[in-house]
Amino acid sequence: MSDTVKYVLDESRIPRAWYNIMADLPSPPPPVLHPGTLQPIGPDDLAPLFPMSLIAQEVATEREIGIPDPVRDVYRQWRPSPLYRARRLERALDTPARIYYKYEGVSPAGSHKPNTAVAQAFYNKEEGVKRITTETGAGQWGSSLAFAGTLFGIEIEVYMVRVSYDQKPYRRAMMEAWGARCTPSPSPETAAGRAILAARPDHPGSLGIAISEAVEMAVQRDDTKYALGSVLNHVLLHQTIIGIEAMEQLALAGDYPDIVVGCTGGGSNFAGIAFPFIGANLREGKTTRIVAVEPAACPSLTRGRYAYDFGDTAHLTPLTKMHTLGSVFTPPGFHAGGLRYHGMAPLVSHVKELGLIEARAYQQIGCFEAGLEFARAEGILPAPEANHAVKGAIDEALACKRDGVSRAILFNLCGHGHFDMQAYVDFKAGKLVDQDYDEAELAMALAGLPSAGA
Amino acid sequence: MSDTVKYVLDESRIPRAWYNIMADLPSPPPPVLHPGTLQPIGPDDLAPLFPMSLIAQEVATEREIGIPDPVRDVYRQWRPSPLYRARRLERALDTPARIYYKYEGVSPAGSHKPNTAVAQAFYNKEEGVKRITTETGAGQWGSSLAFAGTLFGIEIEVYMVRVSYDQKPYRRAMMEAWGARCTPSPSPETAAGRAILAARPDHPGSLGIAISEAVEMAVQRDDTKYALGSVLNHVLLHQTIIGIEAMEQLALAGDYPDIVVGCTGGGSNFAGIAFPFIGANLREGKTTRIVAVEPAACPSLTRGRYAYDFGDTAHLTPLTKMHTLGSVFTPPGFHAGGLRYHGMAPLVSHVKELGLIEARAYQQIGCFEAGLEFARAEGILPAPEANHAVKGAIDEALACKRDGVSRAILFNLCGHGHFDMQAYVDFKAGKLVDQDYDEAELAMALAGLPSAGA
Repeated sequence: MSDTVKYVLDESRIPRAWYNIMADLPSPPPPVLHPGTLQPIGPDDLAPLFPMSLIAQEVATEREIGIPDPVRDVYRQWRPSPLYRARRLERALDTPARIYYKYEGVSPAGSHKPNTAVAQAFYNKEEGVKRITTETGAGQWGSSLAFAGTLFGIEIEVYMVRVSYDQKPYRRAMMEAWGARCTPSPSPETAAGRAILAARPDHPGSLGIAISEAVEMAVQRDDTKYALGSVLNHVLLHQTIIGIEAMEQLALAGDYPDIVVGCTGGGSNFAGIAFPFIGANLREGKTTRIVAVEPAACPSLTRGRYAYDFGDTAHLTPLTKMHTLGSVFTPPGFHAGGLRYHGMAPLVSHVKELGLIEARAYQQIGCFEAGLEFARAEGILPAPEANHAVKGAIDEALACKRDGVSRAILFNLCGHGHFDMQAYVDFKAGKLVDQDYDEAELAMALAGLPSAGA
Repeated sequence: MSDTVKYVLDESRIPRAWYNIMADLPSPPPPVLHPGTLQPIGPDDLAPLFPMSLIAQEVATEREIGIPDPVRDVYRQWRPSPLYRARRLERALDTPARIYYKYEGVSPAGSHKPNTAVAQAFYNKEEGVKRITTETGAGQWGSSLAFAGTLFGIEIEVYMVRVSYDQKPYRRAMMEAWGARCTPSPSPETAAGRAILAARPDHPGSLGIAISEAVEMAVQRDDTKYALGSVLNHVLLHQTIIGIEAMEQLALAGDYPDIVVGCTGGGSNFAGIAFPFIGANLREGKTTRIVAVEPAACPSLTRGRYAYDFGDTAHLTPLTKMHTLGSVFTPPGFHAGGLRYHGMAPLVSHVKELGLIEARAYQQIGCFEAGLEFARAEGILPAPEANHAVKGAIDEALACKRDGVSRAILFNLCGHGHFDMQAYVDFKAGKLVDQDYDEAELAMALAGLPSAGA
């Protein structure tokens, strides 16, 4: 039998609609609250930040939301992304499991992030926005928005956490190659940045500070909006194209997953692969197990509290109910930068509370070992974030071997590791350590949660 | 009209044979000579280095050479590679030209190199070879062979030019991730390496030295062969899958190229896209112009002498007639490491002598400018080598604009720039310079050419 099993969809079969899980949930998620009034926010509260079409998607309840033709047209550059059966990995593991992976690293930015970056750039362009500000940590999101911006002729201003700006010059170079402006945060360009630099001129920055700067720069200009790369409902919505395609590709294979695995940081790639299958569980009585894998050093789903919290450190955002480690929680250093976020997407948190998904946490060394085993079998080197999903899938495949059963396992390989090679260098040099978060720090961060809705 | 125009072939249409240009040439290329006897070499001379099936391909004359099923099976992971029409670039240039590009960066190693690495690994495996040695400069070839080796269960030993080994830890990490052993060259493992280290312990290495080491390590073990990533006839043969697919994809587009452009270092990606179209020119009376673009700092086709020369600095290889700058020529530093070779593939040299192709040389700054213009229009950041082909295509498109004619231009985008971001950082920082080679050095290198067949 052939070793390479790739399920290809003709580009005419790029989905025409995203899947909105709101239509199938037994109960809606708790409302988003205004941090001042503690009342549910309305569209007008978000209008300075987002175009109205995205605000409408944030609260939409219809099951299918059409993908605009110009967005589908850009998707065609790399979509439908391939679904592979991992036969060589199955053989290496000597497992009866049937392992499938959806590969999102084929996008020009190398991850799933352009699925929403392109959509967000389109809707902003349609409403006459000239410029979008955003923040980025490791740079995956910033470069994806830079890619989308150059295609739609929108200026992109990225506030990049300074320590990453200094340590990851290649991601920054990628953003600049696509014409984006990339500024180390904290910066002297904003009041938020100046205040922090005044107190500590060498501040290394944080995602929370970068969000504050990007938001500040968006609200003060009429032709400028803000964009977020995960967490929000509309971002998760755009990512569901991953799971919709995977379902159709698995049908070509004559198979259906017993288990779906994704890694979780803010929650968007996980939701992308998982939500369509959760919907099928809810509507059609399917019994697919849905497994979220998160880093043990930043375990919001497995160790966080389900509570209202801010999305940023500076407390400028609305309050959302989510699994959170507290907005001031600082995880120990680990190499999956895209998973370093204190909270979890409200919709992912909600389905976890409803018992529709499982969650587990892994230390990083085991994830790198899994990633290298995958690379040697399948020929693709995953991003450190994606290694968490690889490890989750391998563990399920080994459980099949132990139990002597063949189950179908689908996981999302959300990006390649080309811009993360230093992590592999450090791993090989024995420099990586498994680190738990600091229990006292977590307790303190949780104690500081706002009391709204508690 | 749609901005993204991608011509997709179903994987059932991966070519079943490579194209052998030897069948269509009006005269055969001059024979390869034994450096001692100056007589044409035979298969036995090459047997210590290569499996017999590859030696047979080196001298084959039939037009089509079947692609073995296990090789096609691996190709299916990323082939057929996409052919795009560059509509956004056409608009940015305001040209009536129809610009198409074949994108080989979709392979797991990020370039066209796996097309031959997979084939070479297969044939070696078939003949019971346990281990393959090779050299690599910037690392594209070494990582491609490492990828192929892990798929076929063959040990790969890469001798990497020491200066690259030190400066490009990420390419090395990629090879090691795929299980290859990567040794900085010169090394104390070989007689050739020890001799050089004795004279100069901090020697930065060269491709010529690395070849000597890899060859030495292959010939002294019965279960070990050697592999080369360009230059040889069988390597060029394997790359013709690029042009064969492109021809079929252009037929889907209802178009045929007036001009085909590729960049040349050793010649393999150029031959890959060009040879099938040269064959059509010869057999069917087509009049496609075929343009080879090389770096002005290492201009073998435009400024070299067509003469017998060694492939390596240490003069261990057979003598081949080719356009050469002299095997001791050292080009000035420039960022397209894959194009830093003193000679040109004998078959590419031969078609140049026959007047079947044109050649031009570009300085690097203009190539980086072209690459960034391409990236902002098309969303893909090219490798520095590929930027030479991009620049060639853009110049032809601007000629169309000047002449007021629409011509179809096809170029080979042979790889992405993810592992070359330092070059883009340096370009943005204004650190790149255009450098001519040293005329005196070239004259000296040419004066040292062997007298065989002169």
